[in-house]
Amino acid sequence: MDSNSVSPMPELAPIAEFDKTPPTPPEDTLPMDDLPPPPTTVNMHDEKEKDVKDKEKEKEEERKKEKEKEAHRRYEDENQWGCGSWLEYTLVIVLASILLLGSLALTLFWIIKYHDGFSWRENPKKQFNLHPVLMVAGFITFSGFSILLYRICRCCRRIYVKLLHTVFHALAIPCVAVGFVAVLDSHNLNEPAAIPNFYSLHSWIGFVTMGLFAIQFVVGFFSFLVLLCCEGATAGFRASLVPIHASFGLTTFMLAIAAAVTGLTEKAIFSLGARYSTLDDESIVVNTIGMSLIALAIVVAYILQRDEFRFRAHILIRSGDL
Amino acid sequence: MDSNSVSPMPELAPIAEFDKTPPTPPEDTLPMDDLPPPPTTVNMHDEKEKDVKDKEKEKEEERKKEKEKEAHRRYEDENQWGCGSWLEYTLVIVLASILLLGSLALTLFWIIKYHDGFSWRENPKKQFNLHPVLMVAGFITFSGFSILLYRICRCCRRIYVKLLHTVFHALAIPCVAVGFVAVLDSHNLNEPAAIPNFYSLHSWIGFVTMGLFAIQFVVGFFSFLVLLCCEGATAGFRASLVPIHASFGLTTFMLAIAAAVTGLTEKAIFSLGARYSTLDDESIVVNTIGMSLIALAIVVAYILQRDEFRFRAHILIRSGDL
Repeated sequence: MDSNSVSPMPELAPIAEFDKTPPTPPEDTLPMDDLPPPPTTVNMHDEKEKDVKDKEKEKEEERKKEKEKEAHRRYEDENQWGCGSWLEYTLVIVLASILLLGSLALTLFWIIKYHDGFSWRENPKKQFNLHPVLMVAGFITFSGFSILLYRICRCCRRIYVKLLHTVFHALAIPCVAVGFVAVLDSHNLNEPAAIPNFYSLHSWIGFVTMGLFAIQFVVGFFSFLVLLCCEGATAGFRASLVPIHASFGLTTFMLAIAAAVTGLTEKAIFSLGARYSTLDDESIVVNTIGMSLIALAIVVAYILQRDEFRFRAHILIRSGDL
Repeated sequence: MDSNSVSPMPELAPIAEFDKTPPTPPEDTLPMDDLPPPPTTVNMHDEKEKDVKDKEKEKEEERKKEKEKEAHRRYEDENQWGCGSWLEYTLVIVLASILLLGSLALTLFWIIKYHDGFSWRENPKKQFNLHPVLMVAGFITFSGFSILLYRICRCCRRIYVKLLHTVFHALAIPCVAVGFVAVLDSHNLNEPAAIPNFYSLHSWIGFVTMGLFAIQFVVGFFSFLVLLCCEGATAGFRASLVPIHASFGLTTFMLAIAAAVTGLTEKAIFSLGARYSTLDDESIVVNTIGMSLIALAIVVAYILQRDEFRFRAHILIRSGDL
């Protein structure tokens, strides 16, 4: 009956057990196993000196054992990752990577093949084309890889993963900004009349997503800067921020996907019209982009929820390497 | 420097410390503190008997201490929930409940006020009206409350929460089924020509959501039934299933929201046409339904990711009450 296996602290019992065995009854002074020690003839001074030495030895041994235990625990943790777990991990990470790159490639293909590529300020319709490509690049591909870095880089130092996480999110910012300007321009410069901004559900969801993304970036970057300035004083605050930042990070990614699928629906209805219901080539391409984003939502949520996949990071946090 | 506070096992060190102190060097045989014990005069048989007794005593003391520690840990866990945590917990649960009921109420209001209510088979347009209301009721309100039960019922026995979880999801099934038939009928009975089924991104997302929901229900119900039949033999399997079921549960809820916002976008464009961009009353109502669903996604994801909110359940799992 191993119902304890879901408990967050199944290791407590064995470790406590392990600790109990030898708080080192000083073996050199008690050489006989079962019998009581023989009467000693040393004087009190010698005795005290011996005691101090014994205590030092004890402490050293304890320290050694602590290290051994730590190593043992790590080894066990690594070993618990059997062949199946590695296969599953590799499979979902590869799948997520394919979907992250595939959805961007498919969006590019859709725009270039069916909507004549890009332009800036000259042709509002072609300027609009920058919007879906750049938003998918920023909110999905860059952000997605940035989130997955914490699962992909399982053996790197946490500080490098953090830096790369920031760089990937920083790369998303110009994509999102230019993508946003592109759609505003294409609406405002539309002929014969300008198209209103911020009326549709898509635009509202997109606005909330951009807001959450900005807050997440500022809070993350601030906490990251504080780390470099006064590491010790902010450790508690930063530690309490980690799960909130992670939770809202996944939520922002999900909202980006919700914004994308509503945007794709809008664009499909507006540009395909009655053709959409015939499921012609372009309709299938648009739906496939949407479904690859939905598949991404499923895979990324699964990867992030799997506690095992973030084991290495946990150990690094445990060593105070926040 | 309390960087350990994010570690899953910050209690290890003190517990180990605590354990180390008294693996009870048999105090009654070693009454003097600093001096080496006097030569004993007891014979070997007595000595062994004493040893056995001592060991028994040790074990009993260990057991007592284990119990004390467990009680202490529970007490600490409860106490860590300060005023702020309770306030936060109450706030987000109330907010989620308002959004779950509010989005359904708003959908009903939208359909009754702007689309003349419901009908069955007589008027395809009115039959369609059942689709958004029943889908929001099933996939959002019932499913949402069903998910949140594990955070709302923090003091109930886990088995009752599970039963209620199943009942709420079971109530969602007829809603989803009738909602699905309603849209198929309204498409097929449409005049002058039938509307094709399953061409839009909304329908594809909805299909995946229904599939995931069905798999989740069957797997959950199966594991729940197995629990009643042979509890002990399946504990390990069920324990390993819990995080996967929970992860896919949240994902299904998110996909339902993605399906809903794409559906709302479709309906707004088809039925409002150019009026949508003027942001008239109905447009605002439709967008508000969408945004309340987005708010729900944020709040529910936040509640589920907050480990503290599921503490009680963890304790119950830890006690083997799976």
